[in-house]
Amino acid sequence: MTTNDAERRAMRRALELAVTPGVPLGPNPRVGCVLLAPDGSTIAEGFHRGAGTPHAEAAALAEAGAAARGATAVVTLEPCNHTGRTGPCSEALIAAGVRRVVFAQPDSNPIAVGGARRLREAGVEVVGAEMIEEAQAINRTWTFALMRRRPFVTWKFATTLDGRSAAADGTSRWVSSTASRRDTHRLRAQCDTMLVGSGTVVVDDPELTVRDDADEPVAVQPLRAVMGLRDLPAGRRILNDRAETVHLRTRDPREALAMLHERQRQHVFLEGGPTLARAFLEADLVDEVVAYVAPMLLGSGASAVADLGITTMTDALHLHVTDVTVLQGHDGEDTNVRLTMRRT
Amino acid sequence: MTTNDAERRAMRRALELAVTPGVPLGPNPRVGCVLLAPDGSTIAEGFHRGAGTPHAEAAALAEAGAAARGATAVVTLEPCNHTGRTGPCSEALIAAGVRRVVFAQPDSNPIAVGGARRLREAGVEVVGAEMIEEAQAINRTWTFALMRRRPFVTWKFATTLDGRSAAADGTSRWVSSTASRRDTHRLRAQCDTMLVGSGTVVVDDPELTVRDDADEPVAVQPLRAVMGLRDLPAGRRILNDRAETVHLRTRDPREALAMLHERQRQHVFLEGGPTLARAFLEADLVDEVVAYVAPMLLGSGASAVADLGITTMTDALHLHVTDVTVLQGHDGEDTNVRLTMRRT
Ligand SMILES: NC(=O)c1ccc[n+]([C@@H]2O[C@H](COP(=O)([O-])OP(=O)(O)OC[C@H]3O[C@@H](n4cnc5c(N)ncnc54)[C@H](OP(=O)(O)O)[C@@H]3O)[C@@H](O)[C@H]2O)c1
Ligand SMILES: NC(=O)c1ccc[n+]([C@@H]2O[C@H](COP(=O)([O-])OP(=O)(O)OC[C@H]3O[C@@H](n4cnc5c(N)ncnc54)[C@H](OP(=O)(O)O)[C@@H]3O)[C@@H](O)[C@H]2O)c1
Repeated sequence: MTTNDAERRAMRRALELAVTPGVPLGPNPRVGCVLLAPDGSTIAEGFHRGAGTPHAEAAALAEAGAAARGATAVVTLEPCNHTGRTGPCSEALIAAGVRRVVFAQPDSNPIAVGGARRLREAGVEVVGAEMIEEAQAINRTWTFALMRRRPFVTWKFATTLDGRSAAADGTSRWVSSTASRRDTHRLRAQCDTMLVGSGTVVVDDPELTVRDDADEPVAVQPLRAVMGLRDLPAGRRILNDRAETVHLRTRDPREALAMLHERQRQHVFLEGGPTLARAFLEADLVDEVVAYVAPMLLGSGASAVADLGITTMTDALHLHVTDVTVLQGHDGEDTNVRLTMRRT
Repeated sequence: MTTNDAERRAMRRALELAVTPGVPLGPNPRVGCVLLAPDGSTIAEGFHRGAGTPHAEAAALAEAGAAARGATAVVTLEPCNHTGRTGPCSEALIAAGVRRVVFAQPDSNPIAVGGARRLREAGVEVVGAEMIEEAQAINRTWTFALMRRRPFVTWKFATTLDGRSAAADGTSRWVSSTASRRDTHRLRAQCDTMLVGSGTVVVDDPELTVRDDADEPVAVQPLRAVMGLRDLPAGRRILNDRAETVHLRTRDPREALAMLHERQRQHVFLEGGPTLARAFLEADLVDEVVAYVAPMLLGSGASAVADLGITTMTDALHLHVTDVTVLQGHDGEDTNVRLTMRRT
């Protein structure tokens, strides 16, 4: 059984709905749903607005009311089959009299899986759609956390063209441009956790909040996490009430990620410092690297990347480039280049 | 006085003619010329094929014969006014009865300048065209060498993402990918001189020729230049007969460039090693930097850029990014990123 044109159009729309701007990130996957009448016209649309709110299918069914009878539900993710804060979507679709369900990403959540089977048992036609990769990309870190039972880790660093993060006298403001720093805030906003070592808290005293292009803190802030054994000195900005903060009292990256996984964290943005970055690299717990390269030469000064114990070329840590973005400089500032890479 | 549509079309064609593939680079500028009849139709085309061959205007006039009388000559560069191996183009255009001359880049060559004035004196209409920047770009290094009385210097280096050119044990094959090395050969082919220090000749024994994508040496090879005081050991590949080689017995970058300028060299491709690169950077004689960045982390090993005596951030050497190109890796090789930058 395959999908028709109207269903493929509806799936594209459902993918858009899934990533509706302003929908807070949370432990739940992002899902979009479109209900189609037998003639292919749209009856209702729905998307999931975050934990505690109706699933995309429920939202669309509520909008459709009785019109859902005999309809086709086009959903970006396989309808769930478990009772959480809301009832199973499979049952809701059956009760509403939906005749056919088209979905893209199969549900890999062990406690929610089985929706497609349940629907088939109840006599509903169930069809897998084509846009699986697009649907999976939306829930990349959700899927990762589910399968690997730990958050996905993005390590971000800034470097000069010759691999320095500071000059010989220790000065480091600014290696990256205003455009790069703004870009970093946008990437932070896409994660649910920002992580630094206690060294960075002591030395730099960062606030570690997400600010918009007007430098105002955004409404929904990721969790701030500090890793290390020592007590944090009082009065540090990371302890203010602008966002939640957690102190992970360990030096073991695996243990820290386990603690964050327990808190349903799916995407950690690792911002250093060098000691913590090295620990994650050596434990092979960096899944993605984002490097901001400034077109600047220093010739000496602190290395942007700490000694990793690699002594020969064949042991070099290779990365797979997934994106290269030029961040144009304004007002005489350097143009920076952002490289995004995955571990190979 | 302004140009008309036919003349602007002809100028675009003349710019194409100027960069006809296969025309050997030499000390002369690249020039294209189109002769138009009064009705705007093309009578003849010409371009300069390199030193010792007719100038673009002469080539077009020869093709046109008597039809040149009353024509308009559209030329990418102001016609020359001096007698070299060929006579002045201004006189040739006057003698052929050309009524109007449209040119883009003004001639900045002090011994050739004055063509426009001479033409006007002889009653020819002379008009400056719009595409000056495009025309100047074609002869970028020719113009630079003429104005600055030294060759333009492009310094190329390869680096890991963290600024290393070799691992701790000295191994360095390969930081850059096959695609990057091929790309380097294409850039070499656009220069007229490749320069290395005697250290690189002794340690690496490079042949320093330009090879095509099938790894065959190309027909026209740039000059190979070695800089340093010591005698070169016999039998080094750089001394073979695949290309001309010159030994510049000096450690002074300014003096080396003066020697190359005397040999009518306009574009030096500086390929290292670190000692020589540092000398050029410190003398502020690097005009362009091409960096091949490999998405690879080493954490230790030789720095891609030598100590430049810079101790604080405000003294960092800033570059202006003019191009970022992604060099896709094949057969499992890394994708590299090429940054091209100018001194600001
Ligand atoms: N260039 C950049 O992008 C960047 C980014 C951030 C910071 N920085 C710079 O980095 C400097 C701070 O360096 P840092 O290395 O001290 O910062 P850090 O990595 O943030 O903190 C190091 C501390 O983290 C704790 N820790 C957690 N896990 C550890 C492990 N596996 N092994 C060892 N220690 C662990 C230790 O403190 P406990 O004793 O509490 O366990 C350790 O002293 C500052 O100067 C800052 O400016 C640079
Ligand atoms: N990563 C890369 O892209 C790259 C590129 C090329 C080479 N390399 C590596 O570089 C290493 C060689 O390093 P190197 O620094 O010896 O190479 P180099 O810079 O090619 O040669 C240095 C030599 O050049 C002469 N020289 C010319 N001008 C000088 C000046 N202003 N100051 C000082 N000396 C000057 C000196 O020799 P005299 O005594 O003859 O005057 C000096 O010993 C090799 O291992 C090679 O593999 C790397």
